Amino acid sequence: MNKSAVKKIAVLTSGGDAPGMNAALRAVVRTANHYDIECFGVREGYNGLINDDFTKMGPRSVKNIIGAGGTILRSARSLEFKTKEGRQKAYDNCVKHGIDGLVCIGGDGTFTGAKIFNEEFGIKVIGVPGTIDNDIFGTDNTIGYDTALNTAMDAIDKIRDTATSHNRVFFVEVMGRDAGFIALNSGLATGAVDILIPEKKDSIEDLFATFERAEKAGKSSSIVVVAEGEQLGSIYDLAKATKAGFPDYDIRVAILGHIQRGGSPSCADRVLASRLGFGAVVGLMKGKTNVMAGLQSNNLVFTPFEEAIKKHNEINQELMLLSEILAI
Amino acid sequence: MNKSAVKKIAVLTSGGDAPGMNAALRAVVRTANHYDIECFGVREGYNGLINDDFTKMGPRSVKNIIGAGGTILRSARSLEFKTKEGRQKAYDNCVKHGIDGLVCIGGDGTFTGAKIFNEEFGIKVIGVPGTIDNDIFGTDNTIGYDTALNTAMDAIDKIRDTATSHNRVFFVEVMGRDAGFIALNSGLATGAVDILIPEKKDSIEDLFATFERAEKAGKSSSIVVVAEGEQLGSIYDLAKATKAGFPDYDIRVAILGHIQRGGSPSCADRVLASRLGFGAVVGLMKGKTNVMAGLQSNNLVFTPFEEAIKKHNEINQELMLLSEILAI
Amino acid sequence: MNKSAVKKIAVLTSGGDAPGMNAALRAVVRTANHYDIECFGVREGYNGLINDDFTKMGPRSVKNIIGAGGTILRSARSLEFKTKEGRQKAYDNCVKHGIDGLVCIGGDGTFTGAKIFNEEFGIKVIGVPGTIDNDIFGTDNTIGYDTALNTAMDAIDKIRDTATSHNRVFFVEVMGRDAGFIALNSGLATGAVDILIPEKKDSIEDLFATFERAEKAGKSSSIVVVAEGEQLGSIYDLAKATKAGFPDYDIRVAILGHIQRGGSPSCADRVLASRLGFGAVVGLMKGKTNVMAGLQSNNLVFTPFEEAIKKHNEINQELMLLSEILAI
Amino acid sequence: MNKSAVKKIAVLTSGGDAPGMNAALRAVVRTANHYDIECFGVREGYNGLINDDFTKMGPRSVKNIIGAGGTILRSARSLEFKTKEGRQKAYDNCVKHGIDGLVCIGGDGTFTGAKIFNEEFGIKVIGVPGTIDNDIFGTDNTIGYDTALNTAMDAIDKIRDTATSHNRVFFVEVMGRDAGFIALNSGLATGAVDILIPEKKDSIEDLFATFERAEKAGKSSSIVVVAEGEQLGSIYDLAKATKAGFPDYDIRVAILGHIQRGGSPSCADRVLASRLGFGAVVGLMKGKTNVMAGLQSNNLVFTPFEEAIKKHNEINQELMLLSEILAI
Repeated sequence: MNKSAVKKIAVLTSGGDAPGMNAALRAVVRTANHYDIECFGVREGYNGLINDDFTKMGPRSVKNIIGAGGTILRSARSLEFKTKEGRQKAYDNCVKHGIDGLVCIGGDGTFTGAKIFNEEFGIKVIGVPGTIDNDIFGTDNTIGYDTALNTAMDAIDKIRDTATSHNRVFFVEVMGRDAGFIALNSGLATGAVDILIPEKKDSIEDLFATFERAEKAGKSSSIVVVAEGEQLGSIYDLAKATKAGFPDYDIRVAILGHIQRGGSPSCADRVLASRLGFGAVVGLMKGKTNVMAGLQSNNLVFTPFEEAIKKHNEINQELMLLSEILAI
Repeated sequence: MNKSAVKKIAVLTSGGDAPGMNAALRAVVRTANHYDIECFGVREGYNGLINDDFTKMGPRSVKNIIGAGGTILRSARSLEFKTKEGRQKAYDNCVKHGIDGLVCIGGDGTFTGAKIFNEEFGIKVIGVPGTIDNDIFGTDNTIGYDTALNTAMDAIDKIRDTATSHNRVFFVEVMGRDAGFIALNSGLATGAVDILIPEKKDSIEDLFATFERAEKAGKSSSIVVVAEGEQLGSIYDLAKATKAGFPDYDIRVAILGHIQRGGSPSCADRVLASRLGFGAVVGLMKGKTNVMAGLQSNNLVFTPFEEAIKKHNEINQELMLLSEILAI
Repeated sequence: MNKSAVKKIAVLTSGGDAPGMNAALRAVVRTANHYDIECFGVREGYNGLINDDFTKMGPRSVKNIIGAGGTILRSARSLEFKTKEGRQKAYDNCVKHGIDGLVCIGGDGTFTGAKIFNEEFGIKVIGVPGTIDNDIFGTDNTIGYDTALNTAMDAIDKIRDTATSHNRVFFVEVMGRDAGFIALNSGLATGAVDILIPEKKDSIEDLFATFERAEKAGKSSSIVVVAEGEQLGSIYDLAKATKAGFPDYDIRVAILGHIQRGGSPSCADRVLASRLGFGAVVGLMKGKTNVMAGLQSNNLVFTPFEEAIKKHNEINQELMLLSEILAI
Repeated sequence: MNKSAVKKIAVLTSGGDAPGMNAALRAVVRTANHYDIECFGVREGYNGLINDDFTKMGPRSVKNIIGAGGTILRSARSLEFKTKEGRQKAYDNCVKHGIDGLVCIGGDGTFTGAKIFNEEFGIKVIGVPGTIDNDIFGTDNTIGYDTALNTAMDAIDKIRDTATSHNRVFFVEVMGRDAGFIALNSGLATGAVDILIPEKKDSIEDLFATFERAEKAGKSSSIVVVAEGEQLGSIYDLAKATKAGFPDYDIRVAILGHIQRGGSPSCADRVLASRLGFGAVVGLMKGKTNVMAGLQSNNLVFTPFEEAIKKHNEINQELMLLSEILAI
């Protein structure tokens, strides 16, 4: 690959951290090194661009991080980068270091910033989708999503031990912001009696009907998985309404919370992160910009930031059907 | 061991479930079988005694359960057993089945019931301490405690990934009812900057002083582990007070909740449960009653229910000191 | 879906067990129940067909098995089913029970048997790919593969702790029969310095060159992942040859072995198994036969047994390249 | 604690690595810092003493290592330290750096070296027992042992999935050198049908009798856990002999190997390591030398190296009995 379009790149992680960000970083740094491109790590997301927090990175800088959760570059949400002045400082620092390409690992907020930065200053930018929520268009899976699914599933499996031992009903809230992917898949994988997600119009009546079907079928304990973005009401409201409808139910609420963001990435996430980190550098070398690297049907594809941000992966209707058929 | 004091025993699990209850049950059933004692499993705790929910159990009834979380006998808190009438029914059912010994796996509520039952009706009863809280006197560790420690630790390790990546302060609440064992040990094991437990007089001033020391030492993220029984205030109050004192801290709250009760028991818990289940049957055979089987300094000991309920294991002062010295 | 082509189906698991087989079984049983199709479980693979080991299964027969490793129906390799007489007995039993459709969960040996059975006796058969090796054409992933990847990765991560602490070189053999998928992906995910798989022509010279590059780059410990089907030599031969070439290396061999087949299935495997179990029943209802249900690019597809057995998923060339670029 | 007997200490890890060594190191460094004692880390065990590989360590040098497997100081077995010349060099380097106390984390080989070093040169030395084998006298548990038990147990649990699915007999070899602690406890915890350890006189006849009892009891699959130091024969010999005695058994061998040394330490190991690291520094401050810090019945105790090396913890006879009673 002679004549790369970039000679010196920088890489940062931004937004909520996700397992696999370090694996993606490692891939960026080592791919750059392989193709004789200089690579700088920028700490704390866009803030590091603004505050000139750049460090030269080589293959040894990223040793033994492929399995580490979080991000060694740290992450942050930057208010200053939302201002023209902030972005100007960021650009000046890039110029100072001779950066001609930027890899931004993060979610849609990260890409929104990257898009503006590219459009204002012309610096080449490629995004890598790192978020547990899987709410980015242009890639079948985002980095961290598979790990979060396994973490949520393990937690719900543990809760089931207690639910079964006590004939209880548990409402379990999982992460995912406005998207129901984690809820749908972890709920399906743990045999949840019902799964409430923002993409589906739910009603208390349907939920009650499910409980009645479950009882009739002989189920003595149940788990309802609720996406954090669910529109029907807060998980506490749902539990309260259920108690009103089924006074003899022993109901508990569990909010899985931040454990879903951490932990060592799964094999699938490490491989995905490695491929996308590699893809981002190769994309920059080929002159691509204002796009996100993603994997669709096992192929590396580049999707314009605009699409990646605006469009959404559809919830799989077959999975919704399955979750009903298989639950009871 | 000829001339056993019992010929037909029953076993039940009661109170909150704990990992290892199944391993204890397996040990009771197989030990009984080994010594030619008939054994019945009673479902749903004392309710099963009252409702005559007895099942004959043999070695094959407990196959492949040593590693299963929860309790296959199920558990429940029985209001009816708190009445004389309820206990009379329970006793009548024991008589009907010819039960002359009872093994009750659970916590202090379970033992309180067992004690009264024994004192009223004379039926031999031995307790086995199964609770994640470790708040039972007469045994170094209760069944489920070691597993809960590992579960809490794993969860806090995951949260640390996020805390570190974002320079955040996390308040993490762990279980333990009125006891701080889980908090102290999981906090020590995860390098918590501070650990708040009911056995120690905490103050907001001390907590703030800790944050200041941590900052001065160069720590950029921190985890505070809070026992659910902490007296200083709810975890939300603590977070709010901290935000008031340190307005630029990015603070999050996580409540680990019921995941701490579930999961496959650790090796230590499976071995402990096996020893105590065995010990309970051997104790009954020797004519012991109104006592709990426990392990102290690696020896099987029997402690009167009265002591087991009233006294408490002391929090290890050295661990408290260590948690301060090693945190920062 | 009115007018199903089948009314009474049987399901069996055959060949090497894989995590997720139970989840697939659960999906078959509950989907059948949902569409009012009777469903029988057959124990111990084709032997159960021959020995008339059928059990009626309903939704409650498969409760709480979605997360269980292995297969509750048990599995076996049947020599008798390879004979015409054996298959005749099997068919007679199917006729006796009124079975008009059969779901066979297993690998290519299983499908070979199913294909002959279908061609000889005309009974409708659909296969579900359950094997950790991922060596089946017609599906992006086989059931159990993702779990095995995580298990292998976790084991290699542990071995790395020791390798790093002692500046050692480890040769680690992973499963996969003639396929290198597990080796390539787990090796990539654990930062293996080299990955030896049957699909790639390896040489001792290349391996030595890799060690030299690694040394030059400052790596003080290394892991080489070797597929069990590797053609260059046994893992012991490779270790011995390396010792001869690099006498001062401290070399160890680890064979991960059967741990890779067990354990609770990952979320991805549970979801995949649920979809394919569902798909198999729906396929039978639509009159499909002599095909395997698979998932390609997230869509349910049916592939003739003949193709599924003969063709092979190609090793991803990009991953091979990546494993070289990112390792050092 | 005024007037410490030491002012400048060094710490090293030696021998086989064990999970929790990093937690012990962290405790040594932070305790020293707390009491205003300077602390140096020595890399690669006694080799580092000889080669003058000392680094000043402070609280931040050990951040985020409490949960890391292996040892960041690395470990090695040093031939040169077995010579008088080697030890002289080591001593000279200690003098050069002003070291007046040494903490050696490792097993009995480590302590043997430490004892000679102390006796020859008078430098104060305290040992911390870090080995998965639990074969050190003077402490109830060694650091790493609890983690290794859980790792072995998890692996055997996975193997059981396959054993059960195929009606197989598995011989599983676990680590422990000449000691049977890992085998006995992991075997008990996984319901092994038999456990072969060097401390017990085993015979093929007893093993066969066990298989016969198991068959009679209706067990269709079995796991035999074999300690690596077992005297009856290699695991392959045992498998072969069993096949000869029971020709229709489907027998497999699994050697768990080095995965047992790695991984993130359990909560119990992190707490133990923290206490012993702390204890070692406090011991040095009080003028103790030529002893090992251990925990007995939850109390910190110091045992002369001579005893720690020569004596051995006895295998618990009750556990041996239990393993027979509960297995079938």
